[in-house]
Amino acid sequence: MHDKPTFCRVHFLPDDRNVEVERGESVLAAAQKAGIYISSVCGGDGICGKCRVIVRSGEIHSKPTTLLDRDEIRRNYILACQSTVQGDLEVEIPPETRLEEGQFLGDEDAERFGMLSLVEGAGFPLNPVVRKYYLDLQPPSIGSPLAGHERLYQAILEHEPGANLQTGFAVLRDLNRTLTESQYKVTVTIGRRGATTEVVQVEPGDTSAHNLGLAIDVGTTTVVVQLVDLVSARIVDSEAKYNSQMKYGEDYIRRIMYAEQHGGSDEMQRLIVGDLNELFEILVHRNTIRASDVTCAVVAGNTAMIHFLIGLDPTGIRKEPYVPVANSIPPLRAAQVGLHINPRGILYTLPSVAAYVGGDITGGAVAIRLDEQKELCLFIDVGTNGEVVLGNKDWMVCCSASAGPAFEGVGVEYGMRAARGAIERVRITPDCGVLVQTIGNRAPRGICGSGLLDLLAEMFRAGILGRDGRFQAKCPARRLVTKDGELRFVIVPKDQSAVGDDIVITQADVSNLIRSKAAIYAAISTLLKTVNVDTHDIRHIFLAGGFGNYLDVRNAITLGLLPDVPPERIHFVGNTAAAGARAALLSEEGLRRIENVARMMTYIDLMTNPKYMDEFVSANFIPHTDIERFPSVAAPGAEVAGTRP
Amino acid sequence: MHDKPTFCRVHFLPDDRNVEVERGESVLAAAQKAGIYISSVCGGDGICGKCRVIVRSGEIHSKPTTLLDRDEIRRNYILACQSTVQGDLEVEIPPETRLEEGQFLGDEDAERFGMLSLVEGAGFPLNPVVRKYYLDLQPPSIGSPLAGHERLYQAILEHEPGANLQTGFAVLRDLNRTLTESQYKVTVTIGRRGATTEVVQVEPGDTSAHNLGLAIDVGTTTVVVQLVDLVSARIVDSEAKYNSQMKYGEDYIRRIMYAEQHGGSDEMQRLIVGDLNELFEILVHRNTIRASDVTCAVVAGNTAMIHFLIGLDPTGIRKEPYVPVANSIPPLRAAQVGLHINPRGILYTLPSVAAYVGGDITGGAVAIRLDEQKELCLFIDVGTNGEVVLGNKDWMVCCSASAGPAFEGVGVEYGMRAARGAIERVRITPDCGVLVQTIGNRAPRGICGSGLLDLLAEMFRAGILGRDGRFQAKCPARRLVTKDGELRFVIVPKDQSAVGDDIVITQADVSNLIRSKAAIYAAISTLLKTVNVDTHDIRHIFLAGGFGNYLDVRNAITLGLLPDVPPERIHFVGNTAAAGARAALLSEEGLRRIENVARMMTYIDLMTNPKYMDEFVSANFIPHTDIERFPSVAAPGAEVAGTRP
Repeated sequence: MHDKPTFCRVHFLPDDRNVEVERGESVLAAAQKAGIYISSVCGGDGICGKCRVIVRSGEIHSKPTTLLDRDEIRRNYILACQSTVQGDLEVEIPPETRLEEGQFLGDEDAERFGMLSLVEGAGFPLNPVVRKYYLDLQPPSIGSPLAGHERLYQAILEHEPGANLQTGFAVLRDLNRTLTESQYKVTVTIGRRGATTEVVQVEPGDTSAHNLGLAIDVGTTTVVVQLVDLVSARIVDSEAKYNSQMKYGEDYIRRIMYAEQHGGSDEMQRLIVGDLNELFEILVHRNTIRASDVTCAVVAGNTAMIHFLIGLDPTGIRKEPYVPVANSIPPLRAAQVGLHINPRGILYTLPSVAAYVGGDITGGAVAIRLDEQKELCLFIDVGTNGEVVLGNKDWMVCCSASAGPAFEGVGVEYGMRAARGAIERVRITPDCGVLVQTIGNRAPRGICGSGLLDLLAEMFRAGILGRDGRFQAKCPARRLVTKDGELRFVIVPKDQSAVGDDIVITQADVSNLIRSKAAIYAAISTLLKTVNVDTHDIRHIFLAGGFGNYLDVRNAITLGLLPDVPPERIHFVGNTAAAGARAALLSEEGLRRIENVARMMTYIDLMTNPKYMDEFVSANFIPHTDIERFPSVAAPGAEVAGTRP
Repeated sequence: MHDKPTFCRVHFLPDDRNVEVERGESVLAAAQKAGIYISSVCGGDGICGKCRVIVRSGEIHSKPTTLLDRDEIRRNYILACQSTVQGDLEVEIPPETRLEEGQFLGDEDAERFGMLSLVEGAGFPLNPVVRKYYLDLQPPSIGSPLAGHERLYQAILEHEPGANLQTGFAVLRDLNRTLTESQYKVTVTIGRRGATTEVVQVEPGDTSAHNLGLAIDVGTTTVVVQLVDLVSARIVDSEAKYNSQMKYGEDYIRRIMYAEQHGGSDEMQRLIVGDLNELFEILVHRNTIRASDVTCAVVAGNTAMIHFLIGLDPTGIRKEPYVPVANSIPPLRAAQVGLHINPRGILYTLPSVAAYVGGDITGGAVAIRLDEQKELCLFIDVGTNGEVVLGNKDWMVCCSASAGPAFEGVGVEYGMRAARGAIERVRITPDCGVLVQTIGNRAPRGICGSGLLDLLAEMFRAGILGRDGRFQAKCPARRLVTKDGELRFVIVPKDQSAVGDDIVITQADVSNLIRSKAAIYAAISTLLKTVNVDTHDIRHIFLAGGFGNYLDVRNAITLGLLPDVPPERIHFVGNTAAAGARAALLSEEGLRRIENVARMMTYIDLMTNPKYMDEFVSANFIPHTDIERFPSVAAPGAEVAGTRP
């Protein structure tokens, strides 16, 4: 008997590359060691299911996963990050797993990860929050004996009249060397910090063409980093991954509770900063830039995420009276939170309005130019929380409904996040046939938010769901089955699914989803009632967020998730948080306007609002208890109501 | 044969205290170990001569010193800091060496060390640059859900309307804990940093009665630290010592050269910060305060000293075109330079005007309220450099004359600093008798600045010195002797001196001193000519600095050091640098006015000014080549000039 070898040889195909790794190393790490870059959006957490490779021969250990279907498992697919090398291996990298330069995420994925903004968010005068000027200074002489620091200030003030300049210790200490060695030809980086303008760094020579910033969207689920050229205003590249904090809870309330129970939120801070640095390093590597040329970062995120990122105590957010430590965080040195950009680079966070309306919303409102709109607009960001803003250039009210994660697939038996194999579109034929479309056209594994919305609306139209959300026996018995005393509607029968069983929706699932949509609709109607306006006064509805991008507007109205406005008034605006961050990054005016919006938004707390409770209860119908609010919805139940004698 | 013991027992009298120390330990350290606090202004550098103790029995090793006279050495006096324990000892601490609580420096010493300001410097509205407010905040509730940080800001703004508030990372991170644990009863410390007002710290409870600051005068020779109560505006205590950098040169030009030759000025920075911390720690200990209650420090110093303190490259100061790195240093965290006050406390440095006109002068000008004067004033700070400011509330011109250290005793054979045994007053009787008065009424060891000034003026009056500064044979041969071909005037004969020899002044000494006084007078008259005003237009002359405090005005005019104005127009104002630092410390208006004065002062460079060279040459007479400028001086030579046919 002899021990297994400590080192194993892994042979990668079709590259024909070999690498020796220690037994127990992950296949993902082995590939990286072999110089093969394979897709792994979640960074090896086994969440994204992107690093699928095929084992041709040899022994591995794999953790169980739901992200591979049986067929794939039969064909020896593994997740490279969840599998460890146990002996000599031969591994094939399928084309879709391979990461080519400049093609890290396919467009489809990029969109799902919220990397695309459908609004520009950068239409303000180009004047980045951190900017560079090349200064060709006159060296001092007897006739011009101005001190180096004052000489620098004088030249900066020609570009920035009236600025209140401030210089840090590190810059001052090196100033003389930089000035003399460069013969007074320097590039100065200045950044806005509240009422002052900081001299962030002084570099020898002309580096003014190299100034980059990061527009960051720290979401509860995904983290997006955009690398932006602050000279040309161009988005150089973007990268996204799942928020690593997810292992401590899908929603941030659970993460706050975890932090409370485990001695603070240092771990949450470490995770989110780790995510940002990971994405940043990919961007640096892929675009062959110098990290030190990245002089600033603007972060849009909900209040909890910003608390985690900065390291503020988030407990106030989850406990009555729901008060954060800070809504506005002053600009910080990015290095203070551990971000690996220029060590003197500045980190800006977009200001929040309240515990449940964050900088993603204030930034988003400016990205869609809500603060310029003369007409009444509604801005909705649908996620675990549905944040709603109602207003125009003169006033804004906002609130947040805890919609819950049902539309993100959580709390729904076959619910899943928008990933390969998820049902994203559903049609029910008059004979109760169910047509589905999955992401990546794979055998269905579950159903994501937009699919669930379609499903419910179609079931309602087909009469399978009543206005009260209860199943009606209006379909063939093979579709409506009972299991453990509960009714279940079969979406995809076992033989067509990738999960070895029927893909169904249960009565409990439907109730969950209706509560979710009711929460959002009730939030909207509470805001409307608070300011005493009507649904038909709304000229534009802006729908933001990943879910927003995919939903069928008609179905959203049918279900009573959105108010009944003409569909052309509804606009998908994609990731407005990132667009808001970019607006601030590229323009001081953008940042100022976001700060102004944060001040002008009046927060309406729904949890303590009796109006909201009434609205919520009334909204727990399809489309609503008060059918007159939805004149466009020809609901089966409505006929009954309408034909009463 | 056996080795000497490694540990020795030292017995201190009259305290009757014993202590064991390692052989080789200094007697000063042994005393400290025994809990006996003995005077040591220079901190053990062997410069101040204050730690004199008497060895009753036992063996010591002592470094040679000029600070003990023969009589003292005979009586077994040693300098405790310059002597090491070599065996069991019995040491007596004489009363004058003992340091009692609250009596560290005698008044006489305090004055000599420039600790006394004869102007208030604190007459501005009490509004310290760093101040505390006790805030009894309403805890958040459903009806008042303002975030903690914004709640704090709101309350601060009630005290500071319109302030641009800024909060640092450390304060933000602890904010929630502080607020909740104190039930929202906190004391906030805020400090001015340029255009913003920083929230420096937030403490639980009401600590607003405990707010202290340091007014610091970093001189080339001495360092003074005043502990100031920022609530009552009272000077709690002061402490002073020699600048430890002195070992690298009496003047700062030499120290800059040393730094250049030894890889930068880190060592100079270390020394000056060490001095400040040492003085600070004495003040903390003696007044039983918490170091963290000291929230700020304001430093007045010449441009070179500030460069050393902050760690800026000082080379520009000594090389044409004589340009410092910075005249205005933004407020820094004191911890950044290593000062041991509150770790978040702020360090302010008073702004300079040029390489040779520093914050000691701008601060001093405001301390004497030069910027309020309607009439024409002259402000002179006499030291190694003689800085001169001419002006009033509307305009100021300034310059610096390199007077050299002759009046500080350097380059004069028996010159010495104002210390025990130094001749400080001289009268010459009609029969050429010389009456002297020494500091501490000791046998004379040498002659200090005020003594030299008296001596020259009296010699001139007695006809022993001609207008050209040359010795005249108008005194007994015992007074005017020749040695090595050079004439020497005997001030104190050998048998009355403590140095075992005649105390004399040589022709070369006199020439040095006349060059010094000429430099200062020429600076004054160059300024007068530059702005085209006359001596009699000067309504007030303010004389600052240690030397200024002691000089005889009449003699200073006779010698032609000061212009010939009625003596009542001349005011001794003591240490105006410390007074300026205190003005800024206690009042934002004070700081603002100093910043304003720094901006309004026009610097006249003498080194490149042809007018100055002419003035300097003409001033190398007693009182001056042009005797008509000194009508009050009845000089022997003047008679000759006046009686020409």
